[in-house]
Amino acid sequence: MPTVPNRELQTFPNPNPERDYEIAFEAPEFTCLCPMTGQPDFATIRIRYVPDAKCVELKSLKLYLWSYRDEGTFHEAVTNRIANDLVAALEPRYLYVEGDFFVRGGIKTVVKVEHRKA
Amino acid sequence: MPTVPNRELQTFPNPNPERDYEIAFEAPEFTCLCPMTGQPDFATIRIRYVPDAKCVELKSLKLYLWSYRDEGTFHEAVTNRIANDLVAALEPRYLYVEGDFFVRGGIKTVVKVEHRKA
Amino acid sequence: MPTVPNRELQTFPNPNPERDYEIAFEAPEFTCLCPMTGQPDFATIRIRYVPDAKCVELKSLKLYLWSYRDEGTFHEAVTNRIANDLVAALEPRYLYVEGDFFVRGGIKTVVKVEHRKA
Amino acid sequence: MPTVPNRELQTFPNPNPERDYEIAFEAPEFTCLCPMTGQPDFATIRIRYVPDAKCVELKSLKLYLWSYRDEGTFHEAVTNRIANDLVAALEPRYLYVEGDFFVRGGIKTVVKVEHRKA
Amino acid sequence: MPTVPNRELQTFPNPNPERDYEIAFEAPEFTCLCPMTGQPDFATIRIRYVPDAKCVELKSLKLYLWSYRDEGTFHEAVTNRIANDLVAALEPRYLYVEGDFFVRGGIKTVVKVEHRKA
Amino acid sequence: MPTVPNRELQTFPNPNPERDYEIAFEAPEFTCLCPMTGQPDFATIRIRYVPDAKCVELKSLKLYLWSYRDEGTFHEAVTNRIANDLVAALEPRYLYVEGDFFVRGGIKTVVKVEHRKA
Amino acid sequence: MPTVPNRELQTFPNPNPERDYEIAFEAPEFTCLCPMTGQPDFATIRIRYVPDAKCVELKSLKLYLWSYRDEGTFHEAVTNRIANDLVAALEPRYLYVEGDFFVRGGIKTVVKVEHRKA
Amino acid sequence: MPTVPNRELQTFPNPNPERDYEIAFEAPEFTCLCPMTGQPDFATIRIRYVPDAKCVELKSLKLYLWSYRDEGTFHEAVTNRIANDLVAALEPRYLYVEGDFFVRGGIKTVVKVEHRKA
Amino acid sequence: MPTVPNRELQTFPNPNPERDYEIAFEAPEFTCLCPMTGQPDFATIRIRYVPDAKCVELKSLKLYLWSYRDEGTFHEAVTNRIANDLVAALEPRYLYVEGDFFVRGGIKTVVKVEHRKA
Amino acid sequence: MPTVPNRELQTFPNPNPERDYEIAFEAPEFTCLCPMTGQPDFATIRIRYVPDAKCVELKSLKLYLWSYRDEGTFHEAVTNRIANDLVAALEPRYLYVEGDFFVRGGIKTVVKVEHRKA
Repeated sequence: MPTVPNRELQTFPNPNPERDYEIAFEAPEFTCLCPMTGQPDFATIRIRYVPDAKCVELKSLKLYLWSYRDEGTFHEAVTNRIANDLVAALEPRYLYVEGDFFVRGGIKTVVKVEHRKA
Repeated sequence: MPTVPNRELQTFPNPNPERDYEIAFEAPEFTCLCPMTGQPDFATIRIRYVPDAKCVELKSLKLYLWSYRDEGTFHEAVTNRIANDLVAALEPRYLYVEGDFFVRGGIKTVVKVEHRKA
Repeated sequence: MPTVPNRELQTFPNPNPERDYEIAFEAPEFTCLCPMTGQPDFATIRIRYVPDAKCVELKSLKLYLWSYRDEGTFHEAVTNRIANDLVAALEPRYLYVEGDFFVRGGIKTVVKVEHRKA
Repeated sequence: MPTVPNRELQTFPNPNPERDYEIAFEAPEFTCLCPMTGQPDFATIRIRYVPDAKCVELKSLKLYLWSYRDEGTFHEAVTNRIANDLVAALEPRYLYVEGDFFVRGGIKTVVKVEHRKA
Repeated sequence: MPTVPNRELQTFPNPNPERDYEIAFEAPEFTCLCPMTGQPDFATIRIRYVPDAKCVELKSLKLYLWSYRDEGTFHEAVTNRIANDLVAALEPRYLYVEGDFFVRGGIKTVVKVEHRKA
Repeated sequence: MPTVPNRELQTFPNPNPERDYEIAFEAPEFTCLCPMTGQPDFATIRIRYVPDAKCVELKSLKLYLWSYRDEGTFHEAVTNRIANDLVAALEPRYLYVEGDFFVRGGIKTVVKVEHRKA
Repeated sequence: MPTVPNRELQTFPNPNPERDYEIAFEAPEFTCLCPMTGQPDFATIRIRYVPDAKCVELKSLKLYLWSYRDEGTFHEAVTNRIANDLVAALEPRYLYVEGDFFVRGGIKTVVKVEHRKA
Repeated sequence: MPTVPNRELQTFPNPNPERDYEIAFEAPEFTCLCPMTGQPDFATIRIRYVPDAKCVELKSLKLYLWSYRDEGTFHEAVTNRIANDLVAALEPRYLYVEGDFFVRGGIKTVVKVEHRKA
Repeated sequence: MPTVPNRELQTFPNPNPERDYEIAFEAPEFTCLCPMTGQPDFATIRIRYVPDAKCVELKSLKLYLWSYRDEGTFHEAVTNRIANDLVAALEPRYLYVEGDFFVRGGIKTVVKVEHRKA
Repeated sequence: MPTVPNRELQTFPNPNPERDYEIAFEAPEFTCLCPMTGQPDFATIRIRYVPDAKCVELKSLKLYLWSYRDEGTFHEAVTNRIANDLVAALEPRYLYVEGDFFVRGGIKTVVKVEHRKA
């Protein structure tokens, strides 16, 4: 699945770039579609990152996560794609993205992606 | 106990093989039989793995876990066997399987198996 | 669905019939089959009753609940049937049966049945 | 808001109409839109009912709840409407519907509706 | 303490006045000042009501609760006053207001007010 | 099972007999033997009573509960017997005894007995 | 044990005497002495009351509860005495006092006292 | 945002400077204003530090945290600033500050800052 | 206290000796006697081990733990002794034993023992 | 604050000195006085240590902790002092003491001290 370059993720300058620190988000209102059946999927998306020059603006992150509402995508792919888009927009020193999906077929799935700046 | 080679575990190509990331499943609907008494045993099976070239398809994993329903097997053996079958099917970079069994004789048993690619 | 008359529920005489008191069981190891698809269903069965002349013997209750393992039955029907079988075997002053089933299609189902002696 | 008469709620005959008993559903995967802003809203819908002649079929309930995904509706209105549609489809002896919505503006909202057959 | 008549509580017509149903809010972001010391107090305000002709609009409720930020008021008085203002604005069939305050002097205080329409 | 008349339950005069009030105990350190197999059983015993003229002395209650350590007795019988012994020793206005036993055969059992003074 | 008449409980006029409402306190920092052994006892004291003309001032309640620090008193007696002192000072429409004591001899004790105005 | 040098943080000499040990505070009563909209924000502030020569006095820390009540500041900036002010006042061997903010736009934010003495 | 060599711990061959994996038990039904006073003590025993050639058989472990019922032993000693007996019987690659005892004198005690194969 | 040399901490010989193992205590019944105001402070004291030649006797530990009941001492100082006294009495291989104090001024304080034998 090709990565949408930035998808409207707005940033602002890191107010304390001289220090490594962590910003964590928990977004329980995520929904997309199953690409096989078209049925809705639901997840909590958890993001943690250490900013370098840029921080993500909260409202644009909300709109970014909403943008998946009508899109078909697998659990593994969408979690990696959110990570890729945040890396492209923020170039963070560290990034962690977790997609914590609801039960399907009696099984709960969680996908966990990490990125460290080279 | 001989390992059943693959037991119908279907796979699909890892969409992000360039990155180490973790996929975790929790399956609370596992049941097998006690090989001594024939009585049912119940467990939650937890799986976490870092895919290499292949990911396990969720529906085939569900069917794979159901396949133990009428089979007699000890706690230690079945947890190792699920790990072996997933290693054979996925050749993952890392795999963890946990069998979290219900109380028997006033004692709760949990078996935890790890595999790392050489 | 016809009620199996007693299905091996063993009883013993109530040691304190002169008093109303409650006996409660929680059995998290219940499984049956979906009559439509043949797929396994899982539930916790909770039973509370006020005995009259007879109490149910614990081991026979365990075997009774196990007897559904290979039987196809709907959530609503099986909970009522367990209640009916206990009423037939125990003739209790009061009975409550709850079938607390695992998530299917993103929805959790609980069925709650009460019986009071006329 | 006019009530959509039935909206595809399928029913099956109550297997035990001679007895009052309760069927409870918890559906945490509910989403609709805010009619003012078009932004997504999320809720857990809880339903409890005492069936009379008809029970609601689980898969059609899932599809019914999904049907709100692209519809703008207020918290108070949608919870009443789900209740009205279930009353129309099932004519239950008793019905309770709860819409438990996520935080908006720092405030969590829960709407609780009851219906008793005359 | 005189009651501020309405303090900007906006209402909208109850969409289902033919039925008694409950609307519940939990607002953990409440703060006012201690009238003795001028020090900040913090509380969670919980509101439950059965609407008659009018429902309270959520955004105006948020602004109403914020309006206490710079006001000195005792725990008992402010909880009653919120109740009085909601009664004046909504004329509800039933209203419950709970002020759940943080520990002061090693003691936690909760004030609970009910109103029923005559 | 014959009731041991008092079994060393010491009492002291109720300091406030002019008022109905409740005294509640939770004793998680209860063990007895299964009369069928001789195997140990474990339970939490919960007692609540409204004293009339007499209160039970805590240390003697501890010793009384310990006295079952080497005695074979069924769940239903022992809970009723504890209730009977407390009624005999205290003649309370109200008494509740709960025996909350550990899992046996995958099933947890709780027995609940109430007594009200005639 | 004679009741100390008021023991410094300060009151202020009920700001809303035209309405029944409840004020609840939870005070986990209570300690007194065992009158038999002189050893410290610890408890959480919970108070709920419906004021009539008077409310208890929070700081004086804190000092009142501290006054038991060096006093020997039984669990049953001290809980009743706190209730009696609050009744004497407040003449409330309703009062509930709960003394929730730490484990002694493997048994936890809770004493619950209610008072209703004649 | 310029750092206010000390903002009244009072200190006292570390009573045990010969040893590394940790002092941790949890302050759930923090509120400031959003610099964009002027609306109140709420957070729990968690602080952990290893003192060197100086410890922070608890009452001055309370007053320091209250001083943000009428100040507009972003989540990331205020958490760093609290850390900077504590570093300036205490010169600690280690410091951790966490700002755990309430949900905004369906997303919860936590900012975590660490400082180690050079 | 001399270690009883094996005390009937039965073993079976490790089904997967080629791999390090962990087997964990939680046994909340442990009781022994205080060697000073003869009064009963209660604990939860937690065991985790990495088997080498031998695994412990669950039923014999249950009987082994029951064997302490009438034996006087201190918390520290009995936890070490269980560890020693398991080491003697299993020669495990790693062993952890935890004795988590109930409150005595207002203090809860937990003893934690580890063994690693040389 | 000068350290009271031993303050009656009784010891007994470590029954297993050949092995490093941990003994942990949790004592929720700790109270002392604020040295500024004379008001009571309350805490849970948690202790973990690896014994060398000596173990602390539980009853003397209880009496030792009670000895602070009438003593004025700051949170930081008393936690270090308990650690110092235990080090002096036990000369342990490792020691951890945590003083977990109740809320004062809306802020909870925890002090954590570690000691390792040179």
